[in-house]
Amino acid sequence: MWDNYPEIKTELAAFEEYLAEKLSSHNDFLQTACRNAVLSGGKRLRPAFTIITAMSGNYRREVVFPAAAAIEVLHTATLIHDDIIDCAKTRRGQLTVAEKHGINLAVYTGDYLLAKALRLLVETRMKPERLDMLAKAVSMLCEGEIDQYLGKYEIASVHNYLKRIMRKTGILFSAACLLGAKAGELDEDSIRLYGRFGLSFGTAFQIKDDLLDMESSERVEGKPVINDLKEGIVTLPVIYAVRNNPELRDEIREFFDGKGDVRQILNRVASAGGPRDSQALKQKYVEKCRKYLSQLPDNIATRALREVAERL
Amino acid sequence: MWDNYPEIKTELAAFEEYLAEKLSSHNDFLQTACRNAVLSGGKRLRPAFTIITAMSGNYRREVVFPAAAAIEVLHTATLIHDDIIDCAKTRRGQLTVAEKHGINLAVYTGDYLLAKALRLLVETRMKPERLDMLAKAVSMLCEGEIDQYLGKYEIASVHNYLKRIMRKTGILFSAACLLGAKAGELDEDSIRLYGRFGLSFGTAFQIKDDLLDMESSERVEGKPVINDLKEGIVTLPVIYAVRNNPELRDEIREFFDGKGDVRQILNRVASAGGPRDSQALKQKYVEKCRKYLSQLPDNIATRALREVAERL
Repeated sequence: MWDNYPEIKTELAAFEEYLAEKLSSHNDFLQTACRNAVLSGGKRLRPAFTIITAMSGNYRREVVFPAAAAIEVLHTATLIHDDIIDCAKTRRGQLTVAEKHGINLAVYTGDYLLAKALRLLVETRMKPERLDMLAKAVSMLCEGEIDQYLGKYEIASVHNYLKRIMRKTGILFSAACLLGAKAGELDEDSIRLYGRFGLSFGTAFQIKDDLLDMESSERVEGKPVINDLKEGIVTLPVIYAVRNNPELRDEIREFFDGKGDVRQILNRVASAGGPRDSQALKQKYVEKCRKYLSQLPDNIATRALREVAERL
Repeated sequence: MWDNYPEIKTELAAFEEYLAEKLSSHNDFLQTACRNAVLSGGKRLRPAFTIITAMSGNYRREVVFPAAAAIEVLHTATLIHDDIIDCAKTRRGQLTVAEKHGINLAVYTGDYLLAKALRLLVETRMKPERLDMLAKAVSMLCEGEIDQYLGKYEIASVHNYLKRIMRKTGILFSAACLLGAKAGELDEDSIRLYGRFGLSFGTAFQIKDDLLDMESSERVEGKPVINDLKEGIVTLPVIYAVRNNPELRDEIREFFDGKGDVRQILNRVASAGGPRDSQALKQKYVEKCRKYLSQLPDNIATRALREVAERL
């Protein structure tokens, strides 16, 4: 992903070693479970954003690495708890903590990693007000997840969908950039712009994820189709399709009542232009990303982040 | 509980109002669930320890209240997650979050309160190193709970039992006192003594809790007896009983294999002196509490804490 940026690749390789070192515990179970969960791959996009953003300022590994690790550990904690809720069996190609060890150990492993994230943040020696940002991000993340859970089987407005995914996904990308900008001691204007970039990036990222979820279900033949809609989670393509073709609302309600076939619904969503309009909204957020980056100095950070945003 | 200490009573009443004010959220579900969970009673022993300890120094509500609230909110978060694991139906006389709203919402409500605890701690404006203590407490708490869960159906040594309950229960009482001592700007020696007092108090508190769990099962007639032993959790009275009468080990193993009756086992534990020896060990920890307090100046804080310790 970072082939054009050898400096970034070098830092990310060093970060990977740092992260592995940091995941030790007196408790053998926790040590193994946490290492498996954190070190089992994943794109490391969020900590990369922290590292890259900090590169545009006063870059000091001893501040940036714990900040980036806090973000990745926090992200992993939320994935472990999400997998309990979604009853997900695998993640990053291996069994989830909940599937392998049961819900009970998954709850505590997630809690342990939340505490670990805070301890890593303290290691940055940033001011407490800056630490508050991460706690606020966790609060908003929980609000987003709860909103999604309670809104199951309901067709939200585009506005509410956006509010939800900004909390669920956008906030952590935003926090990753903000932490990097603060670790790199950038000026207040730049900190703000990087924070906004992160929020828009996370929003576009989640719209893309929701589009992929829909496409993959269309493509899977002869296998049980598991997607958001089957779980009662109504994402942007469906919301747009219903707006374009109000008759669809009843069909979706009937589907939730157990009538009809998911592939048929997804075809109807596609012909009503749901994915097309979602793509267009995603592009608007990519455009916002470009706009914020263009207001920042041209350097390795803004160039690399622009490239990643454009891949969405 | 604080009838002899009107100053403490006044502060605790004011604290109760402060706590209610602090539990607001944009999300209606979270606001209601968190208020119900935190404000539904509970003895407020941990935040009281923070407040009382701070009273022996430079007492400032604006520092002490958020610190005490952080401790109580953190305690509630761990109860919500514990109730998922224990499949507990009621707590403090009302349905648990897990029972009322399902595991999913209980996981996120707990996470939200963990983040809230951190935000309250930031409000104290203490140094980040002091915040680290709470994160460390959460880590140790998770280690204790996981150790207990993985050690089910095993008869631990007294040493390992103590290590487990110090993490599971002692650490949070210790953190409550340490935070109060730091909020009250006590000298390093006093901070250390209050911290040790909290750890010993929490240990005695948990031994008492484990004894009560056993007694209540003995007394319940004609009702399904639900106690630690039935859940495979082996506590101090059983550990001592097996040490005094090694034949009991096989009987307990057989009980875990589904043979025999819990009341019969509990009678055998009692006649082998399990409760008696547990009482004696509890008294040793109460004695430690007295010792630490006697090394501190005689004031309202040490007097009130001595009284509470002696009630154990």
